[in-house]
Amino acid sequence: MRELFEPASVAIIGASPDRTKVGNIILGNMIESGFQGPLYPVNPRYEEIMGLRCYPRVTDVPGPVEMAVIVVPAKAVLQVTEECGQKGVGAIVVISAGFKEVGLEGAVLERRLGELAHRYGMRVLGPNCLGLVNTHHRMNATFAREGPREGNIAISSQSGAICVVILDWAANINIGFSKFVSVGNKLDVDEGHLLEYLREDPFTKVIGMYIEGTDRGREFLRQAELTTRVKPVIALKAGRTSSGAKAASSHTGAMSGSDRVYDAAMRQAGVVRVGNIEEMFDLLQAFSTMPLPQGEGVAIVTNAGGLGVMAADACSDNGLTLASFEPATVERLREGLPPAASLYNPIDVVGDADAARYDHAIRTVMADPNVACVVALLAPTDLVDVSSVARTLTAFAGASPKPIVTSFVGGKEMLASIEMLKAAGVPNYPSPERGVRALAAMVEHRRNLEREEHQAVTPVEADRAAVREVITEVRAEGRLQLSESEGKRILRAYGIRTPEEGIAKDLPSALALAERIGYPVAMKVESPDIAHKTDIGGVVLDIDGPEELERSYQVMLSRVHEKLPRARITGVSIQRMVRGREVIVGMVRDDQFGPVVTFGLGGIFVEILRDVAHGIAPLDRNDAERMVRSIKAYPMLAGARGKRPGDIPALVDVILRVSQMAMEFPELEELEMNPVMVGDEGMGVTAVDALVTIKGEQQ
Amino acid sequence: MRELFEPASVAIIGASPDRTKVGNIILGNMIESGFQGPLYPVNPRYEEIMGLRCYPRVTDVPGPVEMAVIVVPAKAVLQVTEECGQKGVGAIVVISAGFKEVGLEGAVLERRLGELAHRYGMRVLGPNCLGLVNTHHRMNATFAREGPREGNIAISSQSGAICVVILDWAANINIGFSKFVSVGNKLDVDEGHLLEYLREDPFTKVIGMYIEGTDRGREFLRQAELTTRVKPVIALKAGRTSSGAKAASSHTGAMSGSDRVYDAAMRQAGVVRVGNIEEMFDLLQAFSTMPLPQGEGVAIVTNAGGLGVMAADACSDNGLTLASFEPATVERLREGLPPAASLYNPIDVVGDADAARYDHAIRTVMADPNVACVVALLAPTDLVDVSSVARTLTAFAGASPKPIVTSFVGGKEMLASIEMLKAAGVPNYPSPERGVRALAAMVEHRRNLEREEHQAVTPVEADRAAVREVITEVRAEGRLQLSESEGKRILRAYGIRTPEEGIAKDLPSALALAERIGYPVAMKVESPDIAHKTDIGGVVLDIDGPEELERSYQVMLSRVHEKLPRARITGVSIQRMVRGREVIVGMVRDDQFGPVVTFGLGGIFVEILRDVAHGIAPLDRNDAERMVRSIKAYPMLAGARGKRPGDIPALVDVILRVSQMAMEFPELEELEMNPVMVGDEGMGVTAVDALVTIKGEQQ
Repeated sequence: MRELFEPASVAIIGASPDRTKVGNIILGNMIESGFQGPLYPVNPRYEEIMGLRCYPRVTDVPGPVEMAVIVVPAKAVLQVTEECGQKGVGAIVVISAGFKEVGLEGAVLERRLGELAHRYGMRVLGPNCLGLVNTHHRMNATFAREGPREGNIAISSQSGAICVVILDWAANINIGFSKFVSVGNKLDVDEGHLLEYLREDPFTKVIGMYIEGTDRGREFLRQAELTTRVKPVIALKAGRTSSGAKAASSHTGAMSGSDRVYDAAMRQAGVVRVGNIEEMFDLLQAFSTMPLPQGEGVAIVTNAGGLGVMAADACSDNGLTLASFEPATVERLREGLPPAASLYNPIDVVGDADAARYDHAIRTVMADPNVACVVALLAPTDLVDVSSVARTLTAFAGASPKPIVTSFVGGKEMLASIEMLKAAGVPNYPSPERGVRALAAMVEHRRNLEREEHQAVTPVEADRAAVREVITEVRAEGRLQLSESEGKRILRAYGIRTPEEGIAKDLPSALALAERIGYPVAMKVESPDIAHKTDIGGVVLDIDGPEELERSYQVMLSRVHEKLPRARITGVSIQRMVRGREVIVGMVRDDQFGPVVTFGLGGIFVEILRDVAHGIAPLDRNDAERMVRSIKAYPMLAGARGKRPGDIPALVDVILRVSQMAMEFPELEELEMNPVMVGDEGMGVTAVDALVTIKGEQQ
Repeated sequence: MRELFEPASVAIIGASPDRTKVGNIILGNMIESGFQGPLYPVNPRYEEIMGLRCYPRVTDVPGPVEMAVIVVPAKAVLQVTEECGQKGVGAIVVISAGFKEVGLEGAVLERRLGELAHRYGMRVLGPNCLGLVNTHHRMNATFAREGPREGNIAISSQSGAICVVILDWAANINIGFSKFVSVGNKLDVDEGHLLEYLREDPFTKVIGMYIEGTDRGREFLRQAELTTRVKPVIALKAGRTSSGAKAASSHTGAMSGSDRVYDAAMRQAGVVRVGNIEEMFDLLQAFSTMPLPQGEGVAIVTNAGGLGVMAADACSDNGLTLASFEPATVERLREGLPPAASLYNPIDVVGDADAARYDHAIRTVMADPNVACVVALLAPTDLVDVSSVARTLTAFAGASPKPIVTSFVGGKEMLASIEMLKAAGVPNYPSPERGVRALAAMVEHRRNLEREEHQAVTPVEADRAAVREVITEVRAEGRLQLSESEGKRILRAYGIRTPEEGIAKDLPSALALAERIGYPVAMKVESPDIAHKTDIGGVVLDIDGPEELERSYQVMLSRVHEKLPRARITGVSIQRMVRGREVIVGMVRDDQFGPVVTFGLGGIFVEILRDVAHGIAPLDRNDAERMVRSIKAYPMLAGARGKRPGDIPALVDVILRVSQMAMEFPELEELEMNPVMVGDEGMGVTAVDALVTIKGEQQ
């Protein structure tokens, strides 16, 4: 990565004197940015470009070449890459398009490019990218029209157009960058690598990422988790809704639409996720210019009550609290403000407030220990001198120990003052809500910084041989879906309690079994062909005695036979009835993030209200506890309206066991325990049903 | 109202030659706006101001005065108002502050001002307001620095500062107004009056309102309901979260935090509600400049895939659908676009798209019958000529039969083009999401236009005498809270079914009663002092026979006695057990909107998930049906996972009866039926419990 970001020497392969060519723009950008090392244009058709000696091939360059930017047509890329390898180039940036993004043929070409680079040990950025910038190395190896100025934001973008959008926005708002990376098709270098590098980069204060998809999702998460402990990572994930939920064979599957998984993954890794590009800009601006808040309390200073109310609403929407001031603060405010002013949060310095009044109010609340950050609002009332207030606020840029954001709300009257704030580096927003949102993101990041380290969970003793045996048996029969009793064997192998039960082949043995287990019992049809037994009447609960069992047995079998005449029925299972609150615990394998553990309350809560929590395995105890607490219906488990609390530690334990199982057995494709009965505190939890799907051997 | 908005002659009482005085600015604004009628400055200290003859008192003015603007100190307002009355002025605009907003003394002054104006039949705008503008009458009677230009937006604002913010924003964005009204303390003229007037105003195309509170909530709703059938009303309600939920004696009360009631009220009236001032601006811009969409399908045209994905995500978030193009449309697109273009929605015209390509794509999709509106997106890629695309898009301003919004995303590179779009009247937004949100609001308004007329519900026959009897009895005992059986008498008087039941004073009569009703029964403690019987163990369900009843009776009474030793226990009620899905139907009286009917599923759904629907009485059948369908858990009622659907028509009927009861008996303060059991289709619904509170006689 050093060769990519800080090369001592660079070759531009495909450099051109034609000003309309990308190879010309990149060379020009390299020169203009003031790159310090030797720069070698490579193109067999020219001897000199822009006053630099041009070489026919990279291998003809006299000195060493640490990094090469490749801008030749796709079909010539392999050839010049081969030459780069021979030359001993450390990293290549493939600007050229015409690879994976254009279809199968391009994908083949891209794979061969990867193999070639790998053989020579070269890192590859791209192909199909805009290039990269390292302002502190004075290197602009992109073909963007607008070169970024120096600053502390690092950007990675999967879309070239979004790169350009961000550069153009930044030029307007007076924001600078440390690194700017267009990752293109991500043949080699991707967000995971970048996070690893940027984490240690002293010039980078905040990282912004535009992501469309992740191939190495788990590695991205691992790197993000480490990085967010050091500096904020803000991610915009596009394609939230178009991806659609994949066809799923269980509720757990349907619940895990990839966007929800992304959300869970980002949260687990401490990444601040934004919903759109404007929000990304807003947050980058605040993180770039202001210190982190050291607490949670917000102080609002306004010259218009209406704006203050809007900001207070926004605080509440964003989970921020308005600070309560110390008596001394209120006293000091009173001394410096007119009688009509409101001295409590939001502080109304009244419509005719001048710069001195703003200054007094802001400095006073900043000195209050309960205030962690400040929002200063201004409406262009008749009596305010907007620009003198703006000038006063610029004093808080850079020097302020607590973050302050401003919102000068209006238009024409405000333009000059807004420019002044921009130039000084005070984050200003066109509405109070956007300013508050930016502060909320800073508070969120600070909370993330305080989260406990990911703690390796001591794995439980598991009877792995028993799990392997079940998998082998099922595969031997050419099946991928386990019967309920097979699924439960796997659960028990991991120490997850299942109800006392047995399988009966006929009515007399069902009666004998029920007698042994003790009434009341539940009876379920046992069949490898039936996933959702309840839907077809294959479950009878609360059977109180032998007569009821006999009656139910006949009714159930004829009902099942009627609905699914071709299902193979291998018997009925007789289970002891288990009491408790119904929850669902499940696991699916996500293409990008691997095993995702899901939890929710049973029935309607999961199926209709989608009140579920996801976690990416391996989970630690904090993760699992957070999952349980995060569902809206959590009060039902914790004991609402005089009910006793459920056995939440035992439930957390089951979630952790599922996480461990998913990590240890990649063969398990999908698992759902529905319901798991959570007993009262100390009474444990029991998985009453299990639906398990495994992968075929071929995979 | 005509005298207010279109006065033939205006007096400025408190006019001044001192340029720092409000009375000077208003007179200046009136002159500058080109007011056509006679203008009379009134001030005993001057003979002439700004070249106009000044009169000591309004009664000294020679000709008639239709409207007077009052800018004298608060303590002089009554005097000049008296004189206005004597002069026969039709409407006064009281700019002066120092009334209700400063406390009790001001409130008294304000009430006297109201009485005085009422005696003379004068309309009052304000006090404590910024004034008003009618651009088409060439009248700017405000003291705002920035005079609005002529246009088709009418604004009403309860905050002077927000008025100024809107004017300043509009000046920057090239947006004009028909009417601009600062309502101040709303002593007389309020949003309801304004809606009534603006509905008929031919110069007003869209109405924007900033509201902090409503005194005449029901009248506002009635006027809004009528107005939104003619033109869009966009409302920003501030103070969403600060108001807090009032202390409530039932769940229904706690559920009806005033913001949720506002939300229900606005939806019922067809008002488009926005969450912040920026969104208000965004929507006004689109409604002001573009025609309404005649359908729902959105077409997206972009030169950058990433932006297209963002817009598609936003469509999905906002409930808009991407249009599917006709084959002919795709064919035409293919002819005019390069091979790399994407011809399906979102249409990617590729990074090097020129103006002609945008023009071709937009005109082609606009001709498609499945397309109702268009979003055009542009990133400042290296090869695009931003300003020529902008110029092409200006052709769609004014002339387009279908609405189009644009989003030129970026910053510096875009500024000139954005100005061009502004000047032409094409609504442009800094992010795709904001453009899509504006279109979504237009679609929402169009859907509202199509809603059915409010249909008066034929009132059911009710035994009103019985209700009055209960109320009289309860008041006679000095109580406000009804016992369960008293509550149920009221329900039965309105034809709401309650379970067969009786009250027993002791165990033998309880046993006899249960025998007569038939087991299984439920038993509940009967006491005027206990609201939530379940919480203290005062309810036993599913009693199967006399022994169980006897046992439960003893246990229940000792439990209740232990928990609430001082509660008067008047007996137990024995009820037939009723089966069905549990729902809650309730009613509370809101300070601003009157009776609010609430509906939700029982237990956790209401208490924890807050999955409830509100409706402002009187409801029509459509309202009630919408309420039932709008809760998230609706599928549980409609029959999910093979369960039979519930009796929804009967449930709707009960909701309508509660609405009628609330209208006919203002004495009913609060009512909650929890649970109401909804039987299977055709089986009806039964109110199992009733909690009713009435107002004291004094009120």
